[in-house]
Amino acid sequence: MATPTTILERMVDQPVSLRLKDSRELSGRLLGLDDHMNLVLDEVEETSATGTRRLGRVLVRGSNVISLTASSGLPPKRT
Amino acid sequence: MATPTTILERMVDQPVSLRLKDSRELSGRLLGLDDHMNLVLDEVEETSATGTRRLGRVLVRGSNVISLTASSGLPPKRT
Amino acid sequence: MATPTTILERMVDQPVSLRLKDSRELSGRLLGLDDHMNLVLDEVEETSATGTRRLGRVLVRGSNVISLTASSGLPPKRT
Amino acid sequence: MATPTTILERMVDQPVSLRLKDSRELSGRLLGLDDHMNLVLDEVEETSATGTRRLGRVLVRGSNVISLTASSGLPPKRT
Amino acid sequence: MATPTTILERMVDQPVSLRLKDSRELSGRLLGLDDHMNLVLDEVEETSATGTRRLGRVLVRGSNVISLTASSGLPPKRT
Amino acid sequence: MATPTTILERMVDQPVSLRLKDSRELSGRLLGLDDHMNLVLDEVEETSATGTRRLGRVLVRGSNVISLTASSGLPPKRT
Amino acid sequence: MATPTTILERMVDQPVSLRLKDSRELSGRLLGLDDHMNLVLDEVEETSATGTRRLGRVLVRGSNVISLTASSGLPPKRT
Repeated sequence: MATPTTILERMVDQPVSLRLKDSRELSGRLLGLDDHMNLVLDEVEETSATGTRRLGRVLVRGSNVISLTASSGLPPKRT
Repeated sequence: MATPTTILERMVDQPVSLRLKDSRELSGRLLGLDDHMNLVLDEVEETSATGTRRLGRVLVRGSNVISLTASSGLPPKRT
Repeated sequence: MATPTTILERMVDQPVSLRLKDSRELSGRLLGLDDHMNLVLDEVEETSATGTRRLGRVLVRGSNVISLTASSGLPPKRT
Repeated sequence: MATPTTILERMVDQPVSLRLKDSRELSGRLLGLDDHMNLVLDEVEETSATGTRRLGRVLVRGSNVISLTASSGLPPKRT
Repeated sequence: MATPTTILERMVDQPVSLRLKDSRELSGRLLGLDDHMNLVLDEVEETSATGTRRLGRVLVRGSNVISLTASSGLPPKRT
Repeated sequence: MATPTTILERMVDQPVSLRLKDSRELSGRLLGLDDHMNLVLDEVEETSATGTRRLGRVLVRGSNVISLTASSGLPPKRT
Repeated sequence: MATPTTILERMVDQPVSLRLKDSRELSGRLLGLDDHMNLVLDEVEETSATGTRRLGRVLVRGSNVISLTASSGLPPKRT
């Protein structure tokens, strides 16, 4: 069985998409993480109700993270 | 007595359905988990008020999980 | 003095009713539990504002539990 | 100085009234408790906005407890 | 430097006023406390939006406490 | 690098201003603190939506603290 | 892999921008931090729905932090 931490560590340097409790979504490259699921992303693009903006390097406190998705080359397909 | 962890581990590689605090439901195959109930699902389909979409591999922080249901071959029967 | 854990363990295999923070009520047979009050129920029937449905086996994360009531053979009497 | 735990343990087998975060009040006899303030009450009567009903034996997760009052033989006097 | 615990312990047997997260205020004599700031008050008078009532002895779970004020003989002066 | 605790301890006996989660602001002299950021202030003046009032000595549970500002002799300058 | 703590420590003495759970944004120079992500900023400018004001030195309790962004010389570019 793969643990969440093992799977997260394999995502380092890969593009990921992050959903936060304050309804923001952050897309960027995963730079690092720790046991609390504190995460550092680089080249971040933030999407919220007020639009999209570039943020550069962002550190997110783990307690605000809902879920993290590996960004594939394919756009998500609406069913 | 079966502990929740034992029962969860038996569900690995099985289809499960996850209810989150932000009102989303995720269906997919359970890949892995840890003691905080951080979970990794594969082939995820997300259902929310805004519809259904495919997400691929998703890691969910345990603190956002309300409940997890084993997906049977049978659809849930409304009483 | 009986501790909550002792009393909970005596309820295993018995029908119980669970009140969750998201206003749902789950009724089913208690299969297992741990120190965080993570619970596994079988033959679950869920009651919420949108009606009643059968869910089968459900694992509930303890942090979502408000209270647990032993289901007696008698219906609760309104006073 | 009396600690809260000492005082709680003295209340075992006594009638108590419990105020919960979801606005319910539970009255019953205190059966047991632990360090997280998980509590078990017997012969419980629940009062909420929707009225009063009897619940029998109830286990309450400590994180939902706001306060606990010793029920005296005297009704509370409004000033 | 005085630590909060030292200062709290000096308040034992003194009249205090407690502000809770559910907007209630409790006034009474401080009987005891522990490291989680679980508190026991005696001769409690509760003030809320619905008026004032006497509650006798009350145990408050620390996680509901916002702040605690030493009740002086003087009423608080509005500036 | 100065740690938050070191910086807080240097503020003891100094005037500080405290922002709480319930939208209150407390100004006073910092008497003491601990590792949970439980704080004791003296000569406290509370400002909320309902006005300003004097409270004397106040103990605040750390979990309610958002931020703490050193009160300078200068009023904050609006830009 | 860089951990969030390592990356945060490299930001000390650099300008950062902080997003808090109460919708405020704080910009300032990062003075110090600890394992709970308690942070101290200097020369702080606060932006909220009610405008912008200068606060000087501010200590923020980590539990209120959503995310922290390195302030570059370039303004964020809206896409």
